[in-house]
Amino acid sequence: MTSRILLTGFEPFGGERLNPSQALAEALHGQRVGEAEITGLVLPCVFDDALAVLNQALDAHRPGLVLALGQAGSRADLTVERVAINLNDARIPDNAGRQPIDTPVVPGGPAAYFSTLPIKAIVADLRAAGLPASVSQTAGTFVCNHVFYGLMHALATRHPGARGGFMHVPLLPGQAARLAPPTASMALETMREGVLIALRTALHERVDRVVGGGALD
Amino acid sequence: MTSRILLTGFEPFGGERLNPSQALAEALHGQRVGEAEITGLVLPCVFDDALAVLNQALDAHRPGLVLALGQAGSRADLTVERVAINLNDARIPDNAGRQPIDTPVVPGGPAAYFSTLPIKAIVADLRAAGLPASVSQTAGTFVCNHVFYGLMHALATRHPGARGGFMHVPLLPGQAARLAPPTASMALETMREGVLIALRTALHERVDRVVGGGALD
Amino acid sequence: MTSRILLTGFEPFGGERLNPSQALAEALHGQRVGEAEITGLVLPCVFDDALAVLNQALDAHRPGLVLALGQAGSRADLTVERVAINLNDARIPDNAGRQPIDTPVVPGGPAAYFSTLPIKAIVADLRAAGLPASVSQTAGTFVCNHVFYGLMHALATRHPGARGGFMHVPLLPGQAARLAPPTASMALETMREGVLIALRTALHERVDRVVGGGALD
Amino acid sequence: MTSRILLTGFEPFGGERLNPSQALAEALHGQRVGEAEITGLVLPCVFDDALAVLNQALDAHRPGLVLALGQAGSRADLTVERVAINLNDARIPDNAGRQPIDTPVVPGGPAAYFSTLPIKAIVADLRAAGLPASVSQTAGTFVCNHVFYGLMHALATRHPGARGGFMHVPLLPGQAARLAPPTASMALETMREGVLIALRTALHERVDRVVGGGALD
Repeated sequence: MTSRILLTGFEPFGGERLNPSQALAEALHGQRVGEAEITGLVLPCVFDDALAVLNQALDAHRPGLVLALGQAGSRADLTVERVAINLNDARIPDNAGRQPIDTPVVPGGPAAYFSTLPIKAIVADLRAAGLPASVSQTAGTFVCNHVFYGLMHALATRHPGARGGFMHVPLLPGQAARLAPPTASMALETMREGVLIALRTALHERVDRVVGGGALD
Repeated sequence: MTSRILLTGFEPFGGERLNPSQALAEALHGQRVGEAEITGLVLPCVFDDALAVLNQALDAHRPGLVLALGQAGSRADLTVERVAINLNDARIPDNAGRQPIDTPVVPGGPAAYFSTLPIKAIVADLRAAGLPASVSQTAGTFVCNHVFYGLMHALATRHPGARGGFMHVPLLPGQAARLAPPTASMALETMREGVLIALRTALHERVDRVVGGGALD
Repeated sequence: MTSRILLTGFEPFGGERLNPSQALAEALHGQRVGEAEITGLVLPCVFDDALAVLNQALDAHRPGLVLALGQAGSRADLTVERVAINLNDARIPDNAGRQPIDTPVVPGGPAAYFSTLPIKAIVADLRAAGLPASVSQTAGTFVCNHVFYGLMHALATRHPGARGGFMHVPLLPGQAARLAPPTASMALETMREGVLIALRTALHERVDRVVGGGALD
Repeated sequence: MTSRILLTGFEPFGGERLNPSQALAEALHGQRVGEAEITGLVLPCVFDDALAVLNQALDAHRPGLVLALGQAGSRADLTVERVAINLNDARIPDNAGRQPIDTPVVPGGPAAYFSTLPIKAIVADLRAAGLPASVSQTAGTFVCNHVFYGLMHALATRHPGARGGFMHVPLLPGQAARLAPPTASMALETMREGVLIALRTALHERVDRVVGGGALD
């Protein structure tokens, strides 16, 4: 079943003209990781609509592995998310002008889902390959966390056996160049290499390694 | 029932000689917030042991309101935590030398609990009073999150009607002065005023205000 | 001659209603440090005008020691400035609407002046007293650096024997509370204690201690 | 005379195995920018020795334009330095074990030199090309500032007509991957493109543009 990988990104939001996660989903569409073929999918940066598109793709492709990507404008490295929470709290409007505050992603759903990817192994392999990476304890409360939670809920309730998770990527240099310095960025090529490593590790390790990746606060 | 408030802090950890949360629990022990009297309690910074002490106090005092405090060495403002996750991942050993990695706080417990305090109202009231404050989307994965999760689990399963939550406070100036600059800090008096405001708001508002406090990533 | 200390602060700028450096100059006006009496002076946050007021006070009071204070909105600790540069480059307009770009503070003046205060000793004494402090390698290019440079030029050319320097202080909690979190701050009382320690050390040590305070970049 | 460009980098220091500035000097050695040919030169990360090697190269090549590069481990973008100060204050030992504290680069030299490159124009052109960049008001107090000051002193006193300056670059991804996250980095290819743009602008613009690039503090 893991012969199909779904890799999602988002369209630009927040006034940006680019989104590295979109560029990655498009660039890797059709590529193979071992036996498995990647289907790239770009989601609207819109609450609920993003999940409708995602769920349709899950039904259509029935992937064994799903990695959702999102842009993290305040981060400097590849951050593999640990946990998705059942909460929307939008600091800015989404691309449809919606700005939910303290609503659930899935009414009645559990408070949170943990990633079912081997997040410690992915971070270790990324760093070993010379790519800055770390575990993140929060995916925020905007559409990224929304999609991460919705994905994990879908896998848990409707796609037994499939595994999934979320990785945030920094801005591209061209995005950072238009913002107030200093803003961290990462080249698309660096990110692309990182996504492939993350997918390879996720395919091969079903049980995560017991190595530290926690935060004191 | 909210005539009793339990306010917990932690003993020093990580090589520190002080912990502002201990100082606050001790300084406010016996004080009143309106009708309600504060019981200050200092917890060991030790996985499981901290929860044993906390649970004993919950049984003994049967507080209607519990605010757990902890030190956040990397933060500059008062941060009201939104969610506790069922996970221990210790970057450093606790005070008993334990360093669990990716273990649950409560085996079989839900993935997360949300604070049952009005976190948006507390942040708004703190800021209106001239105290830097914000909502935090992660309490980390060390003993602070452990106690926060254990507290919420205890309230949910054994103390119906009682409400609780967690607030992180920065380092004291005297702690920051011994670390590599720049390290943010906050005067104890500023924190003390903040804790009293947080408790007052928590006592009076059972339904949170619908105001933003989210994070994009 | 060091029986007179001139302590300057600035009026609020950049849309703020307060400036901690003004509060400090006013609060310490008339206080003694050993034998020496402090004259507090509030400068307009206006290029050139600030120096006119400063120079008038230098002539009137003939202080042996001058400490100029300024607000550093992006800093978390007390920062003792090492060097003033002969350059104005205003990112925002000053309080008179002036916004010079790449003009000299003193046409024909040297490119820079080093502080003549014992900056390493001051930082060491501040930290020993439990106050977060560090040496800063840049006072920026706004009115703070302008006054620092103008002060050092005046002392070098017209007030032989008098010594002077500059210290930046963080925002007050009440200022940080109105800005986007996280913004570091420091209680006025903590700053006040710091200024007195800095003055005491400056009075007693004419030769700085040889201890590190550098920056790699 | 500007038909010769000298581009310097440093050997690794501080326990690193790489230094992006070395990689850039080596990669661009022999390349042309318009009519001008680049001579790449790697300097030892050693106080005084670095300047001996630099001065020898200035005498041998008599470049019309000199751009010195250095690694800034704490920065996220390309930072064009504004000013070099006559001061060594080493937080760590250099590669020969020397750790000068508060000594002058050139005894009796002026307190500082400003870059004679069009720093605002360079930053504007870098950003317009999609490369994150900003003006920096301090080159630190380690070997980078030492070389920057020594370079400007040599140009001012012995190489009339030649112009020069300094640019700091972030860590490479492979360096950041071995440090505690989050550490910002930049791909070598992004830096390489940036250095070529900086050189092109420096060659063509002898008078800087009047655009902001200041710091409030």
